Amino acid sequence: MFAQLAQTYLPELDSTLRRVVARLPAGVPGFGVMIRYALGWVDENDQPFNQPTGKRIRPILLLLCAEAAGGGWRTALPAAAAVELLHNFSLIHDDIQDNSPTRHKRPTVWKIWGRANAINAGDALFALAYCALEELAGALPLQTTFRIGNIFNATSLELTRGQHLDMRFESQPIVSVDEYVSMISGKSAALIAASAEIGALIGGQDEQTASQYAAFGLNLGIAFQIHDDLLGIWGDPEITGKSAATDILSRKKSLPVLYGLGHSEDLAALYRRETFTEADVQEAVSILNKLGVFEYTQKQEEKYYHQALDSLNRASPQGTAAERLFKLVDNLFKRTY
Amino acid sequence: MFAQLAQTYLPELDSTLRRVVARLPAGVPGFGVMIRYALGWVDENDQPFNQPTGKRIRPILLLLCAEAAGGGWRTALPAAAAVELLHNFSLIHDDIQDNSPTRHKRPTVWKIWGRANAINAGDALFALAYCALEELAGALPLQTTFRIGNIFNATSLELTRGQHLDMRFESQPIVSVDEYVSMISGKSAALIAASAEIGALIGGQDEQTASQYAAFGLNLGIAFQIHDDLLGIWGDPEITGKSAATDILSRKKSLPVLYGLGHSEDLAALYRRETFTEADVQEAVSILNKLGVFEYTQKQEEKYYHQALDSLNRASPQGTAAERLFKLVDNLFKRTY
Repeated sequence: MFAQLAQTYLPELDSTLRRVVARLPAGVPGFGVMIRYALGWVDENDQPFNQPTGKRIRPILLLLCAEAAGGGWRTALPAAAAVELLHNFSLIHDDIQDNSPTRHKRPTVWKIWGRANAINAGDALFALAYCALEELAGALPLQTTFRIGNIFNATSLELTRGQHLDMRFESQPIVSVDEYVSMISGKSAALIAASAEIGALIGGQDEQTASQYAAFGLNLGIAFQIHDDLLGIWGDPEITGKSAATDILSRKKSLPVLYGLGHSEDLAALYRRETFTEADVQEAVSILNKLGVFEYTQKQEEKYYHQALDSLNRASPQGTAAERLFKLVDNLFKRTY
Repeated sequence: MFAQLAQTYLPELDSTLRRVVARLPAGVPGFGVMIRYALGWVDENDQPFNQPTGKRIRPILLLLCAEAAGGGWRTALPAAAAVELLHNFSLIHDDIQDNSPTRHKRPTVWKIWGRANAINAGDALFALAYCALEELAGALPLQTTFRIGNIFNATSLELTRGQHLDMRFESQPIVSVDEYVSMISGKSAALIAASAEIGALIGGQDEQTASQYAAFGLNLGIAFQIHDDLLGIWGDPEITGKSAATDILSRKKSLPVLYGLGHSEDLAALYRRETFTEADVQEAVSILNKLGVFEYTQKQEEKYYHQALDSLNRASPQGTAAERLFKLVDNLFKRTY
């Protein structure tokens, strides 16, 4: 399913991305390579790297929504490039902030080029995302381009709000489910919501229908993150490519963990320990299992998943793209544990 | 002179800035305070701080150019706010990258809230700068607003190019004068150029005249930075508020230093030492003095200063604002050593 979508959209998305990234000034040694590396085009020596990183889910969603909303997906390519560039900006800064050494099985940008350069590479991607939006003006009414720019601005702000909350949660003893949903709405779901909404506007829909697409994207993004939270504890290491119960080991305040901390004094006591042994991790998972946290979390995921589907239905997407959208959503939730 | 300009423009610029910053989502503890602190409105506990930091040179220049180009400066307020926000974004990230503990005699954002939060606060200011530009659309043709957005995008990219070169120079043994001018064109002058150009477009000038304003700003920015370079070595600590020959001590590759390194093997040998003693600093200044580097640098400054004046004359600015512009430029270069 995803492979088919990729075959349809990715070659031209890639061309668009490369055209935008070519706006980086030439003759600046060591500058563009960080951007190209982050986008999965080259290795750290600027040599072609033939295993593209990232699934480009956001731009593909945007292109599908543009088509399902009645437009041509090629018109939407600059906006699709913009959301992918903004996403990669946030990943580069996120990795510095989290001190993460690897992403997509490769060393992170800061790990190779240092934090100072990585901050700047992220900033350049932020600027490039806005450069990509400029290209919309040729094919769309200026009013629509301007409206899309405004959505983009609000989304950038939302990303920083979500990131702030995420960092804050690390030192916050109790995090409520509402606070958590608010955090992932900004950090993860806002850009997916923007992708769907911008696609709808490019497809020619009015504000009201576009806001249904936005609601679809927001709920999809929340459900998607909760699914990731389940995988982070109960995911099969063989499938996820991460170690078992990785989110316990890293003490990530994911939905299952914060729910568990709010409902089990034993778990809270465990989390007050300075370091975790392998036995502690197993003990934590066992407490969560006894509390029924897996089922609780799955129900939360389903709630947002159904809200996403409801919104998408209300938006009345059309044609093959609509079928593909529903299939894509379906597939995203069949990722096994 | 500057006090009079400040009295005219700063109250309404401040209101505009506060209105834009109010777009930060409420109810996010610890988020907005970093932004308000960076803008000089509050102390680290979010209590009013009544000693505004920063002279707001860029927004004032933008407002003056808008007026001198035939427009009303109030129309230009959102753009003036945008350049000030973008400037502050770059300062926050710059301080992390340089490991600078103080700015405007206060601890830097990262020094108080840590690097991870400071990266995010800078990103939020970047997004807010774009939010500010949205407000132009009510008073200007959409085409002009869009054009200004494009200038803003290119300027953001230029800032990252300049920043990259600046960081690269630290580990680059030989830096040419051309490379140096290219670096400060991006890091310092691009935003001043954009301020003048955007002001001219808001004032109603055509592209050709606006590009004269841009050339004025670019040359002004370069001259201004070279002047700072002179102050960094020969500035009177009583006036600059910094220690004597501070740029020698910090081994900053400023124009006098890189010129000296290219012309004196003694200086190059001195710079190969791991650490500098007080005597080394005096020795370095003495080598520069003997080489006539002060005079060389002053000539470079004058060259760009005159190019700035020529461009401004070609732009034919009008009225009281024009007089103020010429006076402002004049005053900027009378900062004593």
